[in-house]
Amino acid sequence: MFIAVPDPTPALLARAVGLRRQALELAQCSDDQRRQALLAMAAALDEQRSEILAANQADMEAAATEALAPALVARLKLNDHKLTGAIEGVRQVAALADPLGLRQLHRALDDGLVLERITVPLGVLGVIFEARPDALIQIAALAVRSGNGAILKGGREANRSCTAILQALQTGLARSAVHPEVLALLTSREESLALLKLDGLVDLIIPRGSNALVQFIQDNTRIPVLGHADGICHAYVDRAVDGEQALAIVLDSKIQYPAACNAIETLLVHREAAPSFLPAAIAALEAAGVELRGDGEARSYGIRGEATDEDWATEYLDLILAVRVVEDLEAAMAHIRCYGSRHTELICTSDAATAETFLARVDSAGVYHNCSTRFADGFRYGFGAEVGISTQTLPPRGPVGLEGLVTYRYRLRGAGHVVAPYAAGSLSFQHRDLPL
Amino acid sequence: MFIAVPDPTPALLARAVGLRRQALELAQCSDDQRRQALLAMAAALDEQRSEILAANQADMEAAATEALAPALVARLKLNDHKLTGAIEGVRQVAALADPLGLRQLHRALDDGLVLERITVPLGVLGVIFEARPDALIQIAALAVRSGNGAILKGGREANRSCTAILQALQTGLARSAVHPEVLALLTSREESLALLKLDGLVDLIIPRGSNALVQFIQDNTRIPVLGHADGICHAYVDRAVDGEQALAIVLDSKIQYPAACNAIETLLVHREAAPSFLPAAIAALEAAGVELRGDGEARSYGIRGEATDEDWATEYLDLILAVRVVEDLEAAMAHIRCYGSRHTELICTSDAATAETFLARVDSAGVYHNCSTRFADGFRYGFGAEVGISTQTLPPRGPVGLEGLVTYRYRLRGAGHVVAPYAAGSLSFQHRDLPL
Repeated sequence: MFIAVPDPTPALLARAVGLRRQALELAQCSDDQRRQALLAMAAALDEQRSEILAANQADMEAAATEALAPALVARLKLNDHKLTGAIEGVRQVAALADPLGLRQLHRALDDGLVLERITVPLGVLGVIFEARPDALIQIAALAVRSGNGAILKGGREANRSCTAILQALQTGLARSAVHPEVLALLTSREESLALLKLDGLVDLIIPRGSNALVQFIQDNTRIPVLGHADGICHAYVDRAVDGEQALAIVLDSKIQYPAACNAIETLLVHREAAPSFLPAAIAALEAAGVELRGDGEARSYGIRGEATDEDWATEYLDLILAVRVVEDLEAAMAHIRCYGSRHTELICTSDAATAETFLARVDSAGVYHNCSTRFADGFRYGFGAEVGISTQTLPPRGPVGLEGLVTYRYRLRGAGHVVAPYAAGSLSFQHRDLPL
Repeated sequence: MFIAVPDPTPALLARAVGLRRQALELAQCSDDQRRQALLAMAAALDEQRSEILAANQADMEAAATEALAPALVARLKLNDHKLTGAIEGVRQVAALADPLGLRQLHRALDDGLVLERITVPLGVLGVIFEARPDALIQIAALAVRSGNGAILKGGREANRSCTAILQALQTGLARSAVHPEVLALLTSREESLALLKLDGLVDLIIPRGSNALVQFIQDNTRIPVLGHADGICHAYVDRAVDGEQALAIVLDSKIQYPAACNAIETLLVHREAAPSFLPAAIAALEAAGVELRGDGEARSYGIRGEATDEDWATEYLDLILAVRVVEDLEAAMAHIRCYGSRHTELICTSDAATAETFLARVDSAGVYHNCSTRFADGFRYGFGAEVGISTQTLPPRGPVGLEGLVTYRYRLRGAGHVVAPYAAGSLSFQHRDLPL
């Protein structure tokens, strides 16, 4: 993508400055005030159900005339059931433990000179997401719960739905201690591009979209970007393995929801396990509608499709699976190092030492032993909700929940303490940890 | 700076790939192996003292012919005393607690399905630092202690010194379990620019240099950048204040080491405190050699220099202080919000409620009450050492020690667990926290 990123217009700047100011006030709200704000948001969504569904219906009709991709249309569509789920999700986020005000460090540097590290909101999130209008609800709930403002940009095809949802969310906030202006929706392409230049006003960009979108954003902003570019997850079936269990895990990792980033795209099989494992696996996967593409050795077990280097590097997000027979654990780990995206990788083995080697040496956000890669998810980890899954190396990594939307601040309280005597050596630090 | 960033040459790529491989092995080394590696590095530095000092002498002679800025020459110069301090620093980092392998989360998602979050190294650090060759020693020690490889680039004027130091560090590593190739020194400008394009091979860029350098790097890399662009720290002297104590703190914050990023650049004084505080402060600061620049009201107390908008936004790093009289706490916080760089801000007040408001509302990495801003430092916080101070919002924020050089990985161990029955509702998660 070669797109010029425009500078923010004065109007957008003024809006972002106003939103930031309200976000700073939100950061001062108590746990209970933010909880109540979420409950008010949920109630207003419930009240404005018919307006939201009508707006979505209008988006769907417009989409029909534009011949949108079926997957996009499926994500765009809201119905009463989906909306109920999203509203329930807001109430669940309200019930989550407060991520703010936690004391992570408490240390007397010397008598009367006490350091604390306290969690605080990031400030303002910039969120760019694709069609799914229900994502707007979830992200707004996570933002407000964690004390952050949010500037949101949905897909153009969901503009009517998103506008109606934002309207409801702000109606709810207006009945709470939180100012409705902590949330803003951008609807034009120019504005959403200019969002990338709001450094100093936006603290984190969260893109929820394609690899190309994420890379474009990374290349065009100084603001930190949270996200994953690709989810090329691997399952490795070791020599020593319970074949039946491994097959069930591999099937679930591939077919339970193939469009998810935590579904596997490549199956690696130890050469000695291949004769017993692959024939049954091929039959089961093909029966489940999975198209298989194998390397030469995998094809010798009956896979018809051929896997090329490109396949190893492709996130299919579909019922396609690349299969490779490998010499040993080392070769499997080398393949993952070369082609993986550091998302989630699985080993199926009954050999505990081999499992530990894999878990210690494979450098992905998630490393799994004898369980489906589909568990890589904020809800399933018990985080209550997630803004996404990060494959970046730096924290927050993996599924990112409320905890990933906060930072910390050091507070130091003294009684006239100055550095000079410590620098001169006439005083020295105690560094005595106090109870958290 | 408008400089084209070249693509990495095949030679640099091969070197970075090799270093990354060795860094992955380093990540598997035990606490004791990494500790021993640091002690071996320290011993080798000690042995090669004369080679290092001779190389530094050659750098100094070259600098003399090039009319380098005196501050740069001062940072470039190594002597026996500085070198001893740096070697001692390596031994201190060896003695720090291991930041790796810490279990941050331990949770049974269901019977037999156990999630852990474990700290692991980032991988490879890219460090770009200015003249100071002793910085190379400190950073290399922090990198190896935290299990990370490092590609280092010092200032051109320090090339001989850095080469000699790296030689010694690698000699030490060669006697340890850690491969010497976990450290590499880049000496050409092209290579150091190409470092910015090693995404996938380098996990974090740490620039230690000017604001312009940091912004140039942020604009030209997809790799996360740790650093601070500016340190515009403020002291606010409140209405209710112990004037004598406040003056001692302000003096220390300004003059104890004015070239540091945590020295104050602006003094804000409550209008009601000004008549009693400012005359004494002006006398003391001027006696200490500080040039004062005031707004109109501050000048009415005897400050001769005039402060413009530009002064409020300037990091002097020198014995210059901008002074402004403000209406109240709100005005002081508004000034900080407008001109601050979110590094460290101080309030001097005897009013506890005012202090708490300041500590709660000022969004900087450090917020201080009645103590010098010069305490904002990894050593003084008890972190043992620091790679720098981050003014970014996201963690790691403030002084960054070993803890900021690690990330984490989720490990999930199951016994054949698949997602389908949980998705269907026939099984549900327990999310039972286990002892850490």
